[in-house]
Amino acid sequence: MRRAAGHQRRFDERFAAYFDSLAGRRGGLDLPPYGAFPARALDLVRELALRGGKRLRVVVLHEAAALVTGEEVAGLDEAAIAIELLHAHGLIHDDIIDDSPVRRGGPSTYYAYRHEFPDRPDTALALAVLAGDLAAFLSMRVLLTGGLPPALAVALAAVHADVGASTVAGQVLDLERDFRPAPDLPLLHAVTEYKSSRYSVLAPLRMGLLAAGADPAPHDGGLSAYATALGIANQIHDDWLDLFGDPGSIGKSAGSDIRSGRHSYVVRALLAAVDAGERRVLDSALGDPDCDDDTLDRVREIARAHGVDAALRAEAGRHAREAAAVAGGWRGHWRAEAVAFFEHLPTWTVARDR
Amino acid sequence: MRRAAGHQRRFDERFAAYFDSLAGRRGGLDLPPYGAFPARALDLVRELALRGGKRLRVVVLHEAAALVTGEEVAGLDEAAIAIELLHAHGLIHDDIIDDSPVRRGGPSTYYAYRHEFPDRPDTALALAVLAGDLAAFLSMRVLLTGGLPPALAVALAAVHADVGASTVAGQVLDLERDFRPAPDLPLLHAVTEYKSSRYSVLAPLRMGLLAAGADPAPHDGGLSAYATALGIANQIHDDWLDLFGDPGSIGKSAGSDIRSGRHSYVVRALLAAVDAGERRVLDSALGDPDCDDDTLDRVREIARAHGVDAALRAEAGRHAREAAAVAGGWRGHWRAEAVAFFEHLPTWTVARDR
Repeated sequence: MRRAAGHQRRFDERFAAYFDSLAGRRGGLDLPPYGAFPARALDLVRELALRGGKRLRVVVLHEAAALVTGEEVAGLDEAAIAIELLHAHGLIHDDIIDDSPVRRGGPSTYYAYRHEFPDRPDTALALAVLAGDLAAFLSMRVLLTGGLPPALAVALAAVHADVGASTVAGQVLDLERDFRPAPDLPLLHAVTEYKSSRYSVLAPLRMGLLAAGADPAPHDGGLSAYATALGIANQIHDDWLDLFGDPGSIGKSAGSDIRSGRHSYVVRALLAAVDAGERRVLDSALGDPDCDDDTLDRVREIARAHGVDAALRAEAGRHAREAAAVAGGWRGHWRAEAVAFFEHLPTWTVARDR
Repeated sequence: MRRAAGHQRRFDERFAAYFDSLAGRRGGLDLPPYGAFPARALDLVRELALRGGKRLRVVVLHEAAALVTGEEVAGLDEAAIAIELLHAHGLIHDDIIDDSPVRRGGPSTYYAYRHEFPDRPDTALALAVLAGDLAAFLSMRVLLTGGLPPALAVALAAVHADVGASTVAGQVLDLERDFRPAPDLPLLHAVTEYKSSRYSVLAPLRMGLLAAGADPAPHDGGLSAYATALGIANQIHDDWLDLFGDPGSIGKSAGSDIRSGRHSYVVRALLAAVDAGERRVLDSALGDPDCDDDTLDRVREIARAHGVDAALRAEAGRHAREAAAVAGGWRGHWRAEAVAFFEHLPTWTVARDR
């Protein structure tokens, strides 16, 4: 993943320059000349957006273009910024929905506002909703006002607007999941697909190919299969880390899915496996924000006793191998180095932070 | 305004057909195949969007194209849908921010969800945020996936994404306004400009001209001046109606700005005019959702005694005449019938519902 680190570094600089340009005369954003709130909203979007992690979406985008060409191509910077702003939009609104104080090692946008307006929670909520909206429109705008060739700009922006709508639908389905006593696997897969894989993998693949001058349509079956399998592998691994991972390396407290009552892949497997006595332990923990570490340890023991730990790791590995096999099919047709990246990415995904 | 009624009827049919097409195979929206929540979110966006009023934004868009040509031009339907979906997006999030149960004579999206989940206000809030997000991405998507010529699609979508971001900034500034003890006129004008005029008047003007093949850039000074003056006239008249209008014709209860403590043009003028005794009456009413009709009558009397009623009507008329004069300058350069529409619109705006 050395190539990935290069993309990340280069992108982070470019992203900061983009935010600087919003205050500029050319390409600048038309903000009201009065008041302090609008500039503060933009600052909070910027802070969150630049506090990014591995920028894997950006890496996928660049490597998708590299499937076709080793040359620099136009549109990748704009597409990368669009994708990361869409991601920021989703995080800002997600953190309102989940009432999450922390994001990426700093305050969530919602809680940044909560701290600024301790006596006005409604104002904090309103401003956080609007900051998320701002990120959404900026994410579309960067594709359309950057002077890209019109046919490319339309193609990229069409993919982006379409995936934006699908991702919101996935977030809506995510809320439905926790309404069901025990969601079935197809529902969990659909949440993963729409809430995450579509914009994190499939759209960057399509946009990278488009920027490189290739029509993604004839390859859409393979691209979708790759995105679906990688997305599920990644989500199962995330859910596994949440209960079994090292709190130090995952950047949040362990068991957050249990404490929030989220029907993750791990929780679904647990609900399907436990007997009546174990179920009482599980029910006492699920959705209890104050669930103590001892109870969490018991849940972990129950999970291990039923093989949920090993089963989930195996399941994540199976989906990762499926994705790698799809990418293997691209050998010969597309450039070897980039194909190798896509073959390697799924294995790396399910091994990270372990 | 007979021409306007024709645009409205035709658009309402077209808008319903657009929502039907989202479920279709071609141009259809990629929604999860599982769950009931995503389809319900789309239904609520549809319900609110189709419960539209006079569709003045759509009329302005069509008449802007008619400044240049009497022929049918491509892109107006998509632009009209985009504008009305952006409007719906703003309404959905505004009704969360203002905790408003009613919108356009029906439940707000937020309260539709509140009724569906009486025991889960957090879920209702989350779903309403996401329904608004869905409307935002749909409003961009319709410009990009409809098969318009790429140069036109990019030009329209660039205007739209830009104005989307500016409008959110205006909504943010609107929240700041009520934090100030007594906002000054430039701040109120900036709120009107960014929260309303930009997307309601200026963007439709620009998009109509673009669809008709004209470059709006050389005319931007006039277009902006027209939008600014018309927007202010319209907002002052709205604020005037809120206190002095006939509750039957304005579709909401009188005095809602007073009851919500909103620093409208009327409230600003009142705050500047009253003496200490009157100020106590005003302060007791401002921001009191249960303020009774007697108190509201006293506020109305105070306003009339200080000439606030007449002054606001005069001020709205002044801005309306300013807008009409700008449009008058378009005679000779642009088509007479459409110019006459833009000359007439401001006067009509400040006379409506009186």
